[in-house]
Amino acid sequence: MKPFRDLIPFDKAREILLAHVPELKDKENVELTQAVGRVLAEDVRSPVSVPPFDRAAEDGYAVIAQDTFDAGQYSPVELEIVGRINTGEYKKIRVEHGQAVEVATGAMLPEGANAVVRVEDTEKEDTKLRVYRAVHPGFDVAPAGEDIKSKATVLKKGELLMPSKIGALAAVGIANVNVYKKPEVAILPTGDELIEPGAALVPGKIYDVNSYTLSSVVLENGGVPKVYGYVRDNVQDIEEKLKQGLKHDMVVFSGGSSVGERDLLVQVISSMGKILFHGVQIKPGKPTWAALVNGKLVFGMPGFPTSCLNDAYQFLVPALRKMAHLPPKREITVKAKMSRRITSTLGRQQFFTVRLEGDIAYPAYKTSGAITSLANSDGYIIIPATVDLVEKGEIVEVHLWR
Amino acid sequence: MKPFRDLIPFDKAREILLAHVPELKDKENVELTQAVGRVLAEDVRSPVSVPPFDRAAEDGYAVIAQDTFDAGQYSPVELEIVGRINTGEYKKIRVEHGQAVEVATGAMLPEGANAVVRVEDTEKEDTKLRVYRAVHPGFDVAPAGEDIKSKATVLKKGELLMPSKIGALAAVGIANVNVYKKPEVAILPTGDELIEPGAALVPGKIYDVNSYTLSSVVLENGGVPKVYGYVRDNVQDIEEKLKQGLKHDMVVFSGGSSVGERDLLVQVISSMGKILFHGVQIKPGKPTWAALVNGKLVFGMPGFPTSCLNDAYQFLVPALRKMAHLPPKREITVKAKMSRRITSTLGRQQFFTVRLEGDIAYPAYKTSGAITSLANSDGYIIIPATVDLVEKGEIVEVHLWR
Repeated sequence: MKPFRDLIPFDKAREILLAHVPELKDKENVELTQAVGRVLAEDVRSPVSVPPFDRAAEDGYAVIAQDTFDAGQYSPVELEIVGRINTGEYKKIRVEHGQAVEVATGAMLPEGANAVVRVEDTEKEDTKLRVYRAVHPGFDVAPAGEDIKSKATVLKKGELLMPSKIGALAAVGIANVNVYKKPEVAILPTGDELIEPGAALVPGKIYDVNSYTLSSVVLENGGVPKVYGYVRDNVQDIEEKLKQGLKHDMVVFSGGSSVGERDLLVQVISSMGKILFHGVQIKPGKPTWAALVNGKLVFGMPGFPTSCLNDAYQFLVPALRKMAHLPPKREITVKAKMSRRITSTLGRQQFFTVRLEGDIAYPAYKTSGAITSLANSDGYIIIPATVDLVEKGEIVEVHLWR
Repeated sequence: MKPFRDLIPFDKAREILLAHVPELKDKENVELTQAVGRVLAEDVRSPVSVPPFDRAAEDGYAVIAQDTFDAGQYSPVELEIVGRINTGEYKKIRVEHGQAVEVATGAMLPEGANAVVRVEDTEKEDTKLRVYRAVHPGFDVAPAGEDIKSKATVLKKGELLMPSKIGALAAVGIANVNVYKKPEVAILPTGDELIEPGAALVPGKIYDVNSYTLSSVVLENGGVPKVYGYVRDNVQDIEEKLKQGLKHDMVVFSGGSSVGERDLLVQVISSMGKILFHGVQIKPGKPTWAALVNGKLVFGMPGFPTSCLNDAYQFLVPALRKMAHLPPKREITVKAKMSRRITSTLGRQQFFTVRLEGDIAYPAYKTSGAITSLANSDGYIIIPATVDLVEKGEIVEVHLWR
């Protein structure tokens, strides 16, 4: 009985995994007000020009630029004010030589005019306007289509809809948009010992943590968690729950993957699909496996909350984000000094949680069973598989949880 | 007519602003599955110990450690197997000297036992167990309360509920939690020229962008956007809409704050509350103002989409996050080389948008009216108010939008 004959390195496991993650093609139509953070599922071309008409870029007077060429600070040109156009108004006025129309910023330029003289470069007396500055044609005019041309591609399929992109869609008048559907992730904690938070504890049982941490990670990374009841440790229940889980886009089991007599889960999955890897050179998370069943990704994560959540960050997040067409999560790291010497297991890449106080990193790790190893930490350091010791005072790179 | 007599520096504006942002006290009770990203509104103490009982940390045999002291690789100690406890089971078995009880990882330790011998250090033959390794008391036992002690403070008021913290709450059996309510932000674009995306364009009108970008920014930063119809440029409508807006926690106007004849908004607000600042030494965003009306923060942002969205990132986000008890947004920056020389206005801190290709930053800025100045950019560089030129090839720090 030698478990995990084929432990593979972390990078290899992640590479295999990502090579097998399908990018979902399903779309849904959402209102623009709800589209932030979603991913565009098709190219969007503009049905209009933005701005839709030549408009004034400043408060002032629409003029024929040529009329101002002789104007100067001490030699004003005099024009006749023949009307006013407010922002949002449409007026059929035409500017002829010697004339000016008062315009507000954003107002449609009247026909005939080709420039705007700013209000501060003028003096008004009844309908007489003195212009103290020469302007060239196009001055302070935002021409139609300056921002976006009609029929131009505004955004491309696959773009993440940040606020500015939402703005570009609004600008061309789009109120609904096709985005990729969020991947649904079935969450299936296994174990006869689990009871739901909120229920009363009974001897031998513990509260389920993994449904909640996994759901949270899924929510934070563009997925929809689907939490099922607990999978009991028998073949029939595993098969039944797996069948339910496979209705969704990805399935995550937790627990049931250590090497004991009752390790049924991996056996059942092997018989139904293809194991991509089983056993990774990491700590925590050694017994992690991933499989493809009916073309869908199925994960097996350790039952210990800290191991499971670390696995979620290291494997589930990149897989889910790829599936959802989201860019990889940006890691935020800071440098810190290790508060004391820590040892690690050769041959296992360790994710070691730390708490930061100023630029000192204190170990937050208690035991792999302890959720507080994570909950009381600010991030983790990675100790490579080839390193068994981090010295006190050594500079480490802390990967922050947020 | 000299506008913006009291332009203040950006840092000063932000400082004044943050000094006047109230932290909301209202709480709401949410299910743990929905609590990720929220902020805890009270300390949480554990009603239980985690684990709730001494449990096996590995698959193996619960023993009295003293019975194994003479065991060695070539001199096994023989014990009698008197039962088995599965994970999640409660059995009233007592281990006496010379006895062992088979246990699975996570199973409750039987009475009398004080250590676990791992399965790989044993050999089983019917009910005979040969132990090949001495273990000390407590070996591979996770004692009750090892992770979290009963009545201990698990999480403190004000903590951001990341997945690991959600896990700690689940571990102590908490299914619902009191969090701070999300601030509601009334969004009030002003201007007679605005029409809603989805509607048909008519001459002189443009599509409203700011409702959509502002809503998106609010959603991304822990707030609830409340979008109202467009504020028309007259005193009555401004007063009426402001009254509606003040039912929420913060009010954001956009448009109507440049210095023109029709700049009614600032006048109306001044008469109803206290202007905190009006005019900031930034580009874009110079005409920005903030006020307190009935103790509530009211913003006036420029109507130009790019200026408005930049303002949202620079002023609204920090204010909203403080109000929501969220930590400041983490800025992600990268170094890049400027593709060409760019000029800036002395006396104005410029937020200049750029597009990244490899380590080269290309200007993305078109005009302050162009939403594509932002939508086609990856981030922005800050050109200080005292700098009027960035040379081609100069190393700049790009603040990424995500």
